Amino acid sequence: MTVGILTGSVRPSGNGAGIASWLQPCLRRILSSSSSPTTSSTSTTAPVVTTIDLGALALPFFDGDTLPAQITTPDAYAHDAVRQWSRRLASLDVVVIVTPQFNWGYPAVLKNAIDWLYHEWRAKPVLLVTYGSRGGGKAAAQLRQVLEGGLKARVLRTTLEIALDKDMVAGQRRVTSDWEGLEPHETVLEEAVQELLQQQNM
Amino acid sequence: MTVGILTGSVRPSGNGAGIASWLQPCLRRILSSSSSPTTSSTSTTAPVVTTIDLGALALPFFDGDTLPAQITTPDAYAHDAVRQWSRRLASLDVVVIVTPQFNWGYPAVLKNAIDWLYHEWRAKPVLLVTYGSRGGGKAAAQLRQVLEGGLKARVLRTTLEIALDKDMVAGQRRVTSDWEGLEPHETVLEEAVQELLQQQNM
Repeated sequence: MTVGILTGSVRPSGNGAGIASWLQPCLRRILSSSSSPTTSSTSTTAPVVTTIDLGALALPFFDGDTLPAQITTPDAYAHDAVRQWSRRLASLDVVVIVTPQFNWGYPAVLKNAIDWLYHEWRAKPVLLVTYGSRGGGKAAAQLRQVLEGGLKARVLRTTLEIALDKDMVAGQRRVTSDWEGLEPHETVLEEAVQELLQQQNM
Repeated sequence: MTVGILTGSVRPSGNGAGIASWLQPCLRRILSSSSSPTTSSTSTTAPVVTTIDLGALALPFFDGDTLPAQITTPDAYAHDAVRQWSRRLASLDVVVIVTPQFNWGYPAVLKNAIDWLYHEWRAKPVLLVTYGSRGGGKAAAQLRQVLEGGLKARVLRTTLEIALDKDMVAGQRRVTSDWEGLEPHETVLEEAVQELLQQQNM
C-alpha cells in the first residue's frame, strides 16, 4: 500500500512538519500490523508512507484555461509541475491530508493543489488530519465538502483533529513528534486504518 | 463611499471579468440613487467603485512567520505586495467579492488574499457575489464562515448567486455585461445596497 502525506501549509515555522514526523512512522507501524482476512496478499508487502511537500511541488495559482474535469491524461496539463503532481497523486493508494485551519477554513496552498486535478481524486481514499487551537474541525468539514461533494473522493468518516497548545499556535513552541498531545490520536489513527481496510474490502 | 470589487479567480478565460463589468456601473448607479435620512452627507459624494485584480496584486502563497492577527501596521508585513494589499483593503468602505465556486468551495487565490490580512477585515462590510453552474452557494456559505467567524467581517445577509449557462462553465461562451441572465440580479443588488445602508446607520 502506498500512502502519501500531504501537508497543507508552506509556513517554514508551522506545526505540520512535527505532526507529519509523528504520523509517518506511526502510520507505517499500524498499517504493517493491521491485516484483514481478505487483504492477506497486500499485508505481506511493507507499506510505503511518503510525505509530499507542497512547497517543493511549486504549483502556480490555478489559471487553467481548460477545466481539470475535462483533462483525462497528465500530458494535457499546461504546466510541468501540474503534470508531475497528477502522476504523483495517481500513484497513491491513500492520501493523508495534514493541514492547519486558517480563519475557520482550509489553507489556499492546499486548495490550490486540490483544484489543479480532478479525475485523479475520484474514489481516492483520503484521511483528514487537521490541527489548530480547537483541532481544526471547521477546516475538516469544509475539506470534506470539497473532496466528497466536489471531487467524489472517499473521505474516511474518522478524522484526526489535533488541538494545539496556545503557545504552539501564537507563540514560539512547535509540535515535535514526541509531544504528549499526540498520544491520544494514536488510537484514532488505528480506527481510521481499520475503516480504510474495511472500505477496501467492500 | 469607496467600494472595491475583488475578483476571486485569475483564469484568463474566466467569467469574473464579465460579471465585474456589469456590476461596476450597476453598483455605482444604485449607490448614487440610494439615500437614507442619516447618510445625506455621504450620498452627496459620488461613490467610487473600483476593481481589484488579484493577479496584479501578485501575492505569494501565505508563508507568514508571524500570524497576521499579531500584525497591527502594514509596515510589519514581510512582503511589499502584502503591505500594498493591506493599505488597499484598509482604504475601502465596502468589499464586493465576485468569485467562482471551485469544487464546492472557494478558489485558492482568493483565500490566499484573505488569509494574508487580519485586522483589516474586522467589521468590514462584505457583499458576496458567487457564480457557477448552480450559482456557487456552497462557496458563499464557506466564505461566510471564514469572513464572519474567522475574521469578524460584516458579511451582508443578501448574496448574489449567479447561475451560469452550461456552455459558460464548460464551453467557450463567457458572461458579458449585457447577458440577460444578469438582469434578475439587479433587484437583489438593490436589496443588498439597502441592507448595507441600514447597517451603516445602526
